[in-house]
Amino acid sequence: MSSSSPLRTALLQSSGRPGDVAQNLKVLDEAAGRAADTGARLLVAPEMYLTGYAIGSDVPRLAEPADGPSAEAVAAIAERHGLAVLYGYPERDVRTHGRVYNSAQAIAADGTPLLNYRKTHLFGCFEQEHFTPGDTPVVQAELGGLTIGALICYDVEFPENVRAHALAGTDLLLVPTAQMHPFQFVAESVVPVRAFESQMYVAYVNRTGPEGEFEFVGLSTLAGPDGVSRARAGRGEELVVGDVDPAFLAASRENNPYLRDRRPELYGSLSPRA
Amino acid sequence: MSSSSPLRTALLQSSGRPGDVAQNLKVLDEAAGRAADTGARLLVAPEMYLTGYAIGSDVPRLAEPADGPSAEAVAAIAERHGLAVLYGYPERDVRTHGRVYNSAQAIAADGTPLLNYRKTHLFGCFEQEHFTPGDTPVVQAELGGLTIGALICYDVEFPENVRAHALAGTDLLLVPTAQMHPFQFVAESVVPVRAFESQMYVAYVNRTGPEGEFEFVGLSTLAGPDGVSRARAGRGEELVVGDVDPAFLAASRENNPYLRDRRPELYGSLSPRA
Repeated sequence: MSSSSPLRTALLQSSGRPGDVAQNLKVLDEAAGRAADTGARLLVAPEMYLTGYAIGSDVPRLAEPADGPSAEAVAAIAERHGLAVLYGYPERDVRTHGRVYNSAQAIAADGTPLLNYRKTHLFGCFEQEHFTPGDTPVVQAELGGLTIGALICYDVEFPENVRAHALAGTDLLLVPTAQMHPFQFVAESVVPVRAFESQMYVAYVNRTGPEGEFEFVGLSTLAGPDGVSRARAGRGEELVVGDVDPAFLAASRENNPYLRDRRPELYGSLSPRA
Repeated sequence: MSSSSPLRTALLQSSGRPGDVAQNLKVLDEAAGRAADTGARLLVAPEMYLTGYAIGSDVPRLAEPADGPSAEAVAAIAERHGLAVLYGYPERDVRTHGRVYNSAQAIAADGTPLLNYRKTHLFGCFEQEHFTPGDTPVVQAELGGLTIGALICYDVEFPENVRAHALAGTDLLLVPTAQMHPFQFVAESVVPVRAFESQMYVAYVNRTGPEGEFEFVGLSTLAGPDGVSRARAGRGEELVVGDVDPAFLAASRENNPYLRDRRPELYGSLSPRA
C-alpha cells in the first residue's frame, strides 16, 4: 500500500429490475454519474446486479463472458463518469465448456478490466443448482494506491476467506451481496467484525426489497479496520458514499497486532492436507 | 453432543482483590453458592482470577502448579456447591523447567480436574514478558452432555482459534478474559460473531474496573449460535446467568450450514506448511 489520498467509494444499494439488463445498465449509468459528483473514484453494485438475482432458469440465458457486451457497456459507463465500477453478474466461460459462475468484475475508469472473481462459496439450493463454484480464493488488483480484492456475499461469512485476503495484502475488500431476511446480523455485525479482525476496509453492497422467494435486507456498509461504519444504508434503494483512508489503515495496522500475532503453526486443522 | 437438558452457566464478572489469593477464593466460594442457588451447574471466573491480572513481577511468586493448593481449594468450592468451576491463574510447570503459563483450569462438581488450557496467543508486552505461550490450541472436556473447551482473552479474537474448536466439536467455549478499554468492541461484537460463525455457545467472562495501568470493561456475555446474548453484564462486579441449550444448538447447526459449506482446500494460506 503506497501513501495516497482517500479513495471515496460509492455503494449502490439497488435491485434494479430483475431480468432487464438494459434497464439495470441504465440505473448503473445514472448512479455512476451521481457517485462521480460526490468525488467517488469507485462504484460498487450488488451481487448479480446486471441481471437480477432471482432469475431462476434464466441464469444460463443471461450469462455472459467476462468480456461480453455488458462488460463493454460497463466499461463505457466507467469511462464516461471517470470512476472504477465493480458489479455482480452470471459469467459463462467457453474455456470451461460453458460453465456458469456467480462472478464480480471490476473495470477501471479507463475502461480496462481490473479483476474478475468467481464466488467460491455458493449459498443454498438455488446457487448450487445454477452455478459452478470458483476455485481461486484471492483475486486482487491495484486501484488508487490500494490493493483491492473481491468476495461475494456468503464468502465473507467465512472468516477464512477474509483472512486469506488480509494475508495477501488486500486493503479494501469489495463484497457485492444478496443478503436476505433473516440474516441482517451479517450486515450489522459480521461485516464490521471482519474488517476489524483482519484490519482492512470492507465494502458490503446489498440488494434490497422482495425478489421472487427472497426478501433482501439492504443495510449496505463500508466498514473500517476499527469496526466502525463509514457509510450505512437503510432498507431501500440508496447510494451511500464513504472514504477509504490509506493513512488511517496504516496507523490502525501499526497499532493492532492481529496479523503479526497469528500463530499459523497452530491452525493446521483449518486446512488439513491429504 | 448427546441429548440433555440445558446447562445453566454462571459468569462471575469480578476482579476480586489483585494479589490476594485467599480473598479471591473467598469471593469465588460465595459466588459459587449464589450460582448454585440459581440452578447453575458451571461457574466461570475471569482470566488470572486467582491472583489478579496486573500483578507484574509477582507473577512468578504467585504462580502455582495445576494441582497446587489453590486448585485444591477450588475443588473444595466445586464440591461444596455441587457445580463445575473454571478459573484463570498463573501456572508453573516443573516439567517445563518452571515455566509460567497464563492458564485456565476447569474442575468438576466432584472435585476432579476437567481441563487445563494454556493461553496460546499472549497479548502485549506485560504478558509476553511474564508468560510462556501454550502450544495446544484445542483443549476439551465433557460436562453435562456437552463438549466444553477453553480459550483465554486475546485467543478468541483470532477466528482461527474458535474455528479449530468448532471443527473439534466444542459446544460451549469458555473464555475467561481481561479485556480492557478501549476494546469493548470485542465484548460487544466480536464474541457474538464468533458464536454465530462457528455455531457454538461462547461464555466470555471479564474482569472489571481499574487495575494498575489497565481499565477493564466488564460486559461479560454468554452468546448463542444465533449471535444473541443469553446473559450480558454491565461494567461493574456482577454475577450473570444464562442457559446453554443442547437442543437449540443442534437445531441451529442443522439450519446453519457454515461448518458443512467450508472449503478447506482453499484455506491453505492460513497455515502454510514448511
